[in-house]
Amino acid sequence: MSGKVIGGAVIGYGGMGGFHSEKMQSVDGVELLGVYDIDPERNELAESRGIHAYPSREALLADPKIGLVTVATPNDVHREIVIAALAAGKNVICEKPVAMDSAELEEMIAAANRYGRLFTVHQNRRWDEDYLTMRKIVEAGELGNAYRIESRVHGSRGIPAGWREEKAHGGGMVLDWGVHLLDQMLTMMGDRKLLSVYATMTNITNDECDDGFTAQVKFENGPEWIVEVGTCNYIEMPRWYAFGDSGSLIIRNWDCDGEIVKIYNRGEDDVPPVLAGAGLTRTMAPRNEQTVEKFPIERVKSDWAEYYRNVIATLNGKAEIVVTHDQLRRSMKLIEAVFESARKNEVVKF
Amino acid sequence: MSGKVIGGAVIGYGGMGGFHSEKMQSVDGVELLGVYDIDPERNELAESRGIHAYPSREALLADPKIGLVTVATPNDVHREIVIAALAAGKNVICEKPVAMDSAELEEMIAAANRYGRLFTVHQNRRWDEDYLTMRKIVEAGELGNAYRIESRVHGSRGIPAGWREEKAHGGGMVLDWGVHLLDQMLTMMGDRKLLSVYATMTNITNDECDDGFTAQVKFENGPEWIVEVGTCNYIEMPRWYAFGDSGSLIIRNWDCDGEIVKIYNRGEDDVPPVLAGAGLTRTMAPRNEQTVEKFPIERVKSDWAEYYRNVIATLNGKAEIVVTHDQLRRSMKLIEAVFESARKNEVVKF
Repeated sequence: MSGKVIGGAVIGYGGMGGFHSEKMQSVDGVELLGVYDIDPERNELAESRGIHAYPSREALLADPKIGLVTVATPNDVHREIVIAALAAGKNVICEKPVAMDSAELEEMIAAANRYGRLFTVHQNRRWDEDYLTMRKIVEAGELGNAYRIESRVHGSRGIPAGWREEKAHGGGMVLDWGVHLLDQMLTMMGDRKLLSVYATMTNITNDECDDGFTAQVKFENGPEWIVEVGTCNYIEMPRWYAFGDSGSLIIRNWDCDGEIVKIYNRGEDDVPPVLAGAGLTRTMAPRNEQTVEKFPIERVKSDWAEYYRNVIATLNGKAEIVVTHDQLRRSMKLIEAVFESARKNEVVKF
Repeated sequence: MSGKVIGGAVIGYGGMGGFHSEKMQSVDGVELLGVYDIDPERNELAESRGIHAYPSREALLADPKIGLVTVATPNDVHREIVIAALAAGKNVICEKPVAMDSAELEEMIAAANRYGRLFTVHQNRRWDEDYLTMRKIVEAGELGNAYRIESRVHGSRGIPAGWREEKAHGGGMVLDWGVHLLDQMLTMMGDRKLLSVYATMTNITNDECDDGFTAQVKFENGPEWIVEVGTCNYIEMPRWYAFGDSGSLIIRNWDCDGEIVKIYNRGEDDVPPVLAGAGLTRTMAPRNEQTVEKFPIERVKSDWAEYYRNVIATLNGKAEIVVTHDQLRRSMKLIEAVFESARKNEVVKF
């Protein structure tokens, strides 16, 4: 460990605020100096845990010992708080989704440039082991040329109670989970040109905000993606499914249970048709062990603290920030297109 | 068994022609009088199996003992042969896809009306047990209000060699398997208005014809459907997946392995967030046994011969034909929309 220790604070001490406070307490190079929440009960909870609660946001931002502020509030107040923190000379990590729309994001980026401070977003799911595992397998060419990648997260509890159920606060699953899955996709696709998206949404448990969506995304010279979030799925479909011209991949869950199946003998003479439902099929006859081979998934290990380590190393001039403004812009444009596509029932092209 | 025995014949003695010949030999009320194929070797094969092979299509159609002709040729010659058979006074079953486009289908329907003969199509997969099982569960309301039905057939052998690889003959997976899956969907949706379709296709093993497609279909007051066929899937996704507001269904394969999971206690206080990848989630926390219950799939029994029994009963004036002209028209319009959507990368609205 080198570089000075940075004083850190968290604004918004809800579920994610608690998470960030723990991170600041455990990662080298940053020291948690305190938190502030608009709800007095949350501040009392912080104090009961031995964490200093500032009496006001202004007091927190006025503390010269604080160099890094993480904003973990409802989505609709990100812009105001982030800009206030940047104006106070703080470096800022904002929770996802960074903003309600691209216009808000541009204001935040402009403020970061104006005040010369770091401004980045907590896209922690780039360090998800299931994602990194899928990515390594596909990028190593283990499936051959990849044609399709399907990323699904399924739950059955609807939208969590509270502000996430309200449109005015930036609720709904596109902004809650979609922003992670779309960010993972965009990061993996790198500089491939985004061509189009078609999205549909569900409003099963909530009339105001989407409680699920499916987005079908095309890239130039890249695989087609399906990105899906559901909160009314009592049976989960696999977390990842992908296929290329010489293999398929399934990763069923966060624990990376799954397998790769690769072909090594494409030609198989005289395949007998099989009975499938009320008819015969040669096309859909299953493969046998003479032509395909199954491989286990080798799980890529990761550590969520890498996100904070990158921020701190960047502040100490020892790294480049991983979550960049241009990535945030691209992701926000795509999210806007997902909403537009679903609202119009049309393909949005870029 | 009542009604007279109808003389039957099959034109085109390939894979499906053999299937139809066996059906005509085994179902009461019809007697197989012979077959004809343009390939002399296929006629010799028929003769070697004790089936009379007519010397020409004209000779077959001129036989007054034949009342029912099944056409099991490549798709591009359906129209010509069906119309010739109708003109010869025969009742006609045509293999799917009935035609290359709606214009051809209208010519065939006009001929059936002109000559006053039965004309129907071999949509045998309406009798698939997996389909009937899914349908019974959803229609009985076991999932609550159904929001999504996903129908997938995955193989890994590409398009079967021969005319199915050629566009001029009506090749590709939309016309081969899609026509079945879309017909199942349309039949189940009954008179619900079809709103839109968005489709994408793959050309992994074949540049000329689609070797797979995904179609997302919306109905007025009905569930959204995903209909997908793949021939480069070394791992199969489930044959059926569906969810409603109070339950989910999975049917993994033709043998109807799967389960239903229903909720019976929606509220579950104080769900602890679970670790999922590089973050915590309350939304995606799994259900426990106190709130959901798993049920086995009760497989609906069916019999492929029902298709022929319906045709024969109709010819004997004892039933209404199950596969109607209006259904064929609707299905063909949808297939055309699938091609158009994929070609333009746009949603096609009806």
